[in-house]
Amino acid sequence: MSGNPNLDQLRRLLSEVEDLRKSLGLLFWDQRVMMPPGGSQARAEACATLGRIAHETFVSPEVGKLLDSLDENDYDHDSDEASLIRLARRDYEKAVRVPPELTGEMRRASILALGAWGPAKEKSDFKALLPHLERNLELRRRYVECFDDFDETYDVLLDDYEPCMKTAEVREIFEGLKRDLVPLIQEITAVGDVDDSFLFGDFDVERQREFCLDVLHQFGYTEDEWRLDETAHPFMSSPGHGDIRLTTNFRPGDLQAIFACMHEFGHGAYEWGVDEKLAGTPLGSGVSLGVHESQSRTWENLVGRSRACWRFFYPKLQETFPERLSDVDEEVFYRAINKVHPSLIRIEADEVTYNMHIILRFELEQDLLEGRLAPKDLSGAWNEMMHRYLGVDVPDDAHGVLQDMHWAGGSIGYFPTYALGNVISVQIWERLKEDLVDVDEQMERGDFAEIREWLRTHLYVLGRKFTPQETIERVTRSRIDAGPYIRYLREKLAPQPA
Amino acid sequence: MSGNPNLDQLRRLLSEVEDLRKSLGLLFWDQRVMMPPGGSQARAEACATLGRIAHETFVSPEVGKLLDSLDENDYDHDSDEASLIRLARRDYEKAVRVPPELTGEMRRASILALGAWGPAKEKSDFKALLPHLERNLELRRRYVECFDDFDETYDVLLDDYEPCMKTAEVREIFEGLKRDLVPLIQEITAVGDVDDSFLFGDFDVERQREFCLDVLHQFGYTEDEWRLDETAHPFMSSPGHGDIRLTTNFRPGDLQAIFACMHEFGHGAYEWGVDEKLAGTPLGSGVSLGVHESQSRTWENLVGRSRACWRFFYPKLQETFPERLSDVDEEVFYRAINKVHPSLIRIEADEVTYNMHIILRFELEQDLLEGRLAPKDLSGAWNEMMHRYLGVDVPDDAHGVLQDMHWAGGSIGYFPTYALGNVISVQIWERLKEDLVDVDEQMERGDFAEIREWLRTHLYVLGRKFTPQETIERVTRSRIDAGPYIRYLREKLAPQPA
Repeated sequence: MSGNPNLDQLRRLLSEVEDLRKSLGLLFWDQRVMMPPGGSQARAEACATLGRIAHETFVSPEVGKLLDSLDENDYDHDSDEASLIRLARRDYEKAVRVPPELTGEMRRASILALGAWGPAKEKSDFKALLPHLERNLELRRRYVECFDDFDETYDVLLDDYEPCMKTAEVREIFEGLKRDLVPLIQEITAVGDVDDSFLFGDFDVERQREFCLDVLHQFGYTEDEWRLDETAHPFMSSPGHGDIRLTTNFRPGDLQAIFACMHEFGHGAYEWGVDEKLAGTPLGSGVSLGVHESQSRTWENLVGRSRACWRFFYPKLQETFPERLSDVDEEVFYRAINKVHPSLIRIEADEVTYNMHIILRFELEQDLLEGRLAPKDLSGAWNEMMHRYLGVDVPDDAHGVLQDMHWAGGSIGYFPTYALGNVISVQIWERLKEDLVDVDEQMERGDFAEIREWLRTHLYVLGRKFTPQETIERVTRSRIDAGPYIRYLREKLAPQPA
Repeated sequence: MSGNPNLDQLRRLLSEVEDLRKSLGLLFWDQRVMMPPGGSQARAEACATLGRIAHETFVSPEVGKLLDSLDENDYDHDSDEASLIRLARRDYEKAVRVPPELTGEMRRASILALGAWGPAKEKSDFKALLPHLERNLELRRRYVECFDDFDETYDVLLDDYEPCMKTAEVREIFEGLKRDLVPLIQEITAVGDVDDSFLFGDFDVERQREFCLDVLHQFGYTEDEWRLDETAHPFMSSPGHGDIRLTTNFRPGDLQAIFACMHEFGHGAYEWGVDEKLAGTPLGSGVSLGVHESQSRTWENLVGRSRACWRFFYPKLQETFPERLSDVDEEVFYRAINKVHPSLIRIEADEVTYNMHIILRFELEQDLLEGRLAPKDLSGAWNEMMHRYLGVDVPDDAHGVLQDMHWAGGSIGYFPTYALGNVISVQIWERLKEDLVDVDEQMERGDFAEIREWLRTHLYVLGRKFTPQETIERVTRSRIDAGPYIRYLREKLAPQPA
């Protein structure tokens, strides 16, 4: 109770919306992980109903009136009260601008397009997806028209995934990345490939699962608050405070799942660490996709692909797969899991080239949205850029423009958050290393508690109390800046002078 | 679309309520089967919110006005339209009579009492539960006061579990059971115990699971529409049409899980077989707890403890556990799984004595409700009746009055549905055998499709279209009648003259 009945009532209504959204999250997790396929139709209807009630409750005139009656400046800027009013006002003002019919049309179009995407990718048939992409794009243009306060069209879409971020700022960051990464990639590829053939072969899935659970437990996973399940397209879901669910996909032919588990652990740790007193309110989750990705990449790459971390884990991995790894020494393993090699598929890309996959998509999205590129020419433009940025020739659309589901799902403006996450991860990590000077020694001992605790107290606890930019500045004392990330990549991965 | 906009709108609102209830069902299943314990607090809040919205939507003045505007007699009695209006009106008129505060108090009291029940049972400490039972009882009396159209107090509570059933009718049925079963139990115990010691020992849980899944598949379980998971207190849940979830508890020391799986399969088959066009409406599930239990008992006992069924399954079970069963012949096994032996615990009781456990509870519930028995004297009364009905001496309350969670959960009037289910199961089975004269031969071949299909087309499809009594009469051409059940028990289990 805040002493202000209007604020209490706002909180009550927003908690109701959160309960519905968390329940929707569970319906979604269950559908992907547990539900027998026969339940699809009923599940679609239940999701539609819960989604509609959540939306209607949130955009109700009562919420509007309560927000009109409340002033965030009556409270300390850092207080939960001020944060709640600020955030709710921002979300509300966006939500009421979009007519429910348009939201409905966008959702229906996405479902149809996602239905077409699977078979189109299967047959590498871009034309089969084309009308859906055109429709999604047309609907996003109509969506943009609902808003008026933006510098360029793309801003509106980006804001749904990375609130308050401007396209111009992303462009500047990405230009910096491009300038440094294209030559770095050339330097690396010039010296020839690292041998990582021992990472492919026969790795018993049951032993992979045990090893991954060992790693996760070492990171901070407990049976009390976490789960790990299998699914085709891994994701993290938190259907409630204290309930963190990771999913992964164990493949018998490689060790990819280890890094995928570390990645999802990062997403999970962020949700897990949000201040308990924000639970059940709209403040009680990660602040943006970019900041979320910074944490998945921290645990996957900054921790999970570090020498120090494998100093601890590699002997255990060798014990797990002695027939494949007993002859491979730690440094050889370390280099193999950090191999840089331009390739076709984003989700399989290394730390360096990954960003170029994102920049390509970011540039194409803007071209499409601004009408500089016709959707029918998208496949050709994709292939040309893949050649230009990564020197890779795309054999077919399944390995090119059709590889990701995002555009079919109507998510335009989502991709940049992946590369922003990479950039932010190193900015935060540098701050962490100022406080934890022996972080490598800790990891070598298998001790991840101080790392997790530093990230929790500096970042995770904040939830959505501040904008993503404000959050990043509070943690790093800097705006988003690609400098540290580029230095990190160069130091770790550039060929050393002989 | 019905052509009547008011009916369409009523359907739309009721579907919304159903979607919320099915989602609640999933939240509940997940909590019992999947959720890490850390999620309890958030889950409780989400459940409370969804439950409240479902209730408020259902008892809204709009639903009341729509019902006032509709007349079931405008439609054919057997039509879905008439059934929907009848059922919705009945549920609505009950729901609006109970003040939300009372519902809230009852829920809170139940949660507290259930919290106390576990430790009380653990320590066999009836006094620790007593104040909670008194509170539950007091709240049920207030609940009864919300209604006026009933012959005796217990009718109101019974109606929540077995709609339209009168206490007087249950009493008459149970008197018949008691009259015949008490002497039958004496006859059976007089001839001495059957040896079933080989059913206890070391049964590998993984092999049990495989065998149970084989049985379930043979019964009609498919991966497309069913799941089987493990939990402490088994139950069936269907969070949507085409999505049937069984749970069970494999114990390493006995084969109990086989029958528990068959039992839950019966509950699942009933939900699975409800007419698809009723899905997503309040008509789309089983009609009452008693009729539901009739189906779980059909698959557990009439099918699952029959000679014919084990003619097919027993060789497979011997192959699964050769070290324990290869020397046990089929008839010896059949007699062991049908051993009648008065014992302390309801859920472990055989087909005959089970009913006496229920009758005892039914009589005690009425005595409590009518004030003839003070809650503080409940434990003593329990023990006295156990001795009188079953000749069993209760060593402590954990094995007596504290064994079930129902009364702590506030469920008074629930127990009789278990024995009613037994009675109804045989009435339906006799009708089935008139149509499927070679039912034993079918089971001996492992063919359960015609049985399932007969039950589906005669009973399951009906869902909640008619009252339980009407439903039973449509299937059996008779009112509920204990005669067939008693004949069945006597024929199957009474000692044969030497």
